[in-house]
Order: sequence, then C-alpha cells, then structure tokens
Amino acid sequence: MKALEEKILRDGQVRPGNILKVDSFLNHQMDIEFINEIGKEFHRLFGDRPINKILTIEASGIGIACIAAQYFGVPVVFAKKAQSVNLDGSLYTTQVESFTHKRTYDVILSKKFLTAEDHVLVIDDFLANGCAVNGLLDIIESAGATLEGVGIVIEKGFQDGGKELRARGVDVKSLAIIKSMTDDSIEFAEQD
Amino acid sequence: MKALEEKILRDGQVRPGNILKVDSFLNHQMDIEFINEIGKEFHRLFGDRPINKILTIEASGIGIACIAAQYFGVPVVFAKKAQSVNLDGSLYTTQVESFTHKRTYDVILSKKFLTAEDHVLVIDDFLANGCAVNGLLDIIESAGATLEGVGIVIEKGFQDGGKELRARGVDVKSLAIIKSMTDDSIEFAEQD
Repeated sequence: MKALEEKILRDGQVRPGNILKVDSFLNHQMDIEFINEIGKEFHRLFGDRPINKILTIEASGIGIACIAAQYFGVPVVFAKKAQSVNLDGSLYTTQVESFTHKRTYDVILSKKFLTAEDHVLVIDDFLANGCAVNGLLDIIESAGATLEGVGIVIEKGFQDGGKELRARGVDVKSLAIIKSMTDDSIEFAEQD
Repeated sequence: MKALEEKILRDGQVRPGNILKVDSFLNHQMDIEFINEIGKEFHRLFGDRPINKILTIEASGIGIACIAAQYFGVPVVFAKKAQSVNLDGSLYTTQVESFTHKRTYDVILSKKFLTAEDHVLVIDDFLANGCAVNGLLDIIESAGATLEGVGIVIEKGFQDGGKELRARGVDVKSLAIIKSMTDDSIEFAEQD
C-alpha cells in the first residue's frame, strides 16, 4: 500500500532494538481518516472470503479492527491480556510473548464469542516474530473456527513471523513489509 | 439513548460486585453497527463544540473512540497502561485505580500528542467511581489543553464518579445511566 509506505517514511521513527515508532498515526495517536484507507485496503484484499468475524488483540489492534470491520459488516472480537486467568472453562487461553515489552502474558477470549461456525479474519498493527498472531491462531484452533486470513498493517520482513506463518499455509497479507531499516533509512519489500 | 437501554436490558448481565457485563456488544465482542449509532449520538451531543481530538484510555475505550471520531473528523489519542514509566520528560503520567481489577496502574500519554492548543472530548465505555476519567482529566490539565466534554456509554449512577465530575463543572453526558441494578432487573435514570 503505497500511501502507507509514504506515511511510514514521513512519520515513522526507527529506534534502537529494531523498534519502528508509528505512534503519530497508528498506535498511540490514531489518524482515523488514514486508518479508514487501511480498512478499505483490507477489504479489497479479503472481501471475497466468507468472513463473519474479525479477531484482534488488545490494545493497538482494536481501533484498526473496528474501522476495518465497517467495510466487512461484521463484529470484532478482541483477545484480552489477562490480569488473572479463571479456570472455569469459559475462556480460551494462550500465552503471548511481547517483542516490545520483553515479557510473556496470558491472553484470554470468552468461548461465547468464537465457535466452530466462525470464519475469521485476524487483524493486527504489527507482525514481527509472530507471537501475537500465533496466540490468536491457537485460540482459533481451540474454537474449531476457520481462519480465512491474517491482515497486518506493518510487517517486519527481517524477522521470521511472516515467513513462518506463510510456510504453514496461512494467508498473511501485510500492507507494508519492511525489508530493512536503519536510523536513516527504511526499505520496503516489493509487493504485487 | 433508548436503543442502548434496550440493548443493555436484552444482552447485559449483572454479576456479583456491581459488575455489568456487556461484553457481547461493547467491550469484548464489539457490535460495530451498533457502536456507529453510539458514535452518531456522541456527535449529536457534542458536535457543536470546537473539538479537535478525542482522548480515551486502553483498552475498551479505543474502538468506541475510533468509531465516534469518524463523525467528528478528528484523530484519537489513547492513554496507555504503562509497563514501565520512563522519566525522560516526554510523557504525561498519572495513576488510575481499576474498579474491575482492584489494582492501581500507571497511565501514560506522549506529550507530542496533547498540547495547550487542543480541545478535547474524552470518551470511555464505563463511568463508575470515575478513576479512569479523572486520570484523563489530570493529563489534559498537565497539557494545558481545553476539556470540551466527557462522553460515556454507560454510567453507573449509583456510584459517585459522574456526580463528582458534574459538581466540578465537567460536562459529562452518558448515553445510559443505571440508577440501580440487581440480578433480575436494571433500572435507568430518566434523561432529557
């Protein structure tokens, strides 16, 4: 998505530890008009699938998923980072390691909101080592739901998450894929 | 907002400890079509103010704020629950006590995204004892920004948050105000 690459080049900031800050438009301040363009693009890419639910994970995926869901006409369900996991059997649970925060946390989703009937599009802001997406795929598998695809805003192509998911046959589409980045430059992978 | 009261009566569940679960449409699964109606209602109530930014707090406020922001044509900024607060002066910080989780956490907002030029509408899903909103008002005050109003989806009118904010002159508008609730019944306050 050309407009996204341009926005990353203009407003993104590379920080030590392979951190790309896009907090001026994507995940702290949110440019809602631009995120609508992102939502339209996800619909262009996945609109031909029988998707009836969008799944994301708190916190920064939520707004993007909600805006995108308007173009699909479906509800959003977001997995929550758990304060405490109750074990009454009403929740799907999995563990996710955070790349940015260098810690592992429990993630939960109420069983009421994902079942074997569901056809799911996963949406998230970033894909790096793939931990968050893999956690969501665990949950989809536990539910017996059908994964229709994974829509990512920014993929760090120099980390292995996207590669591994595609090798498993998951249909991952990222609106921008960063091939390499340094303090001075960001290079994107060619896309169709 | 009549449609919201009806939805709470139909889909809400009262749980021990004055918990109202509305996770089937508002803060776990999100009914995006209905949340658009909520966004329109916030715009009907606050659309005459010179609002240039919507402020909320992660996680469950984000989706509602993003949908509502479309009707105002403004960006969203969300305060983050901090893993760790850096003290380099680039962040506003405050503390918020969670009613549901019975703990206090640090909340941060990058100073870049809120300044004395800003006219802010605060949006959140719930108002009970007012801790989350008060945290956001602290941040607005630190920034020297102008608070234009507070839009809440569901206010627990039997707790003191809304009363105290209004006594301080804050323009709080809640789309549904619960006067009392028991396992069997939910009663709403009359509204204009």
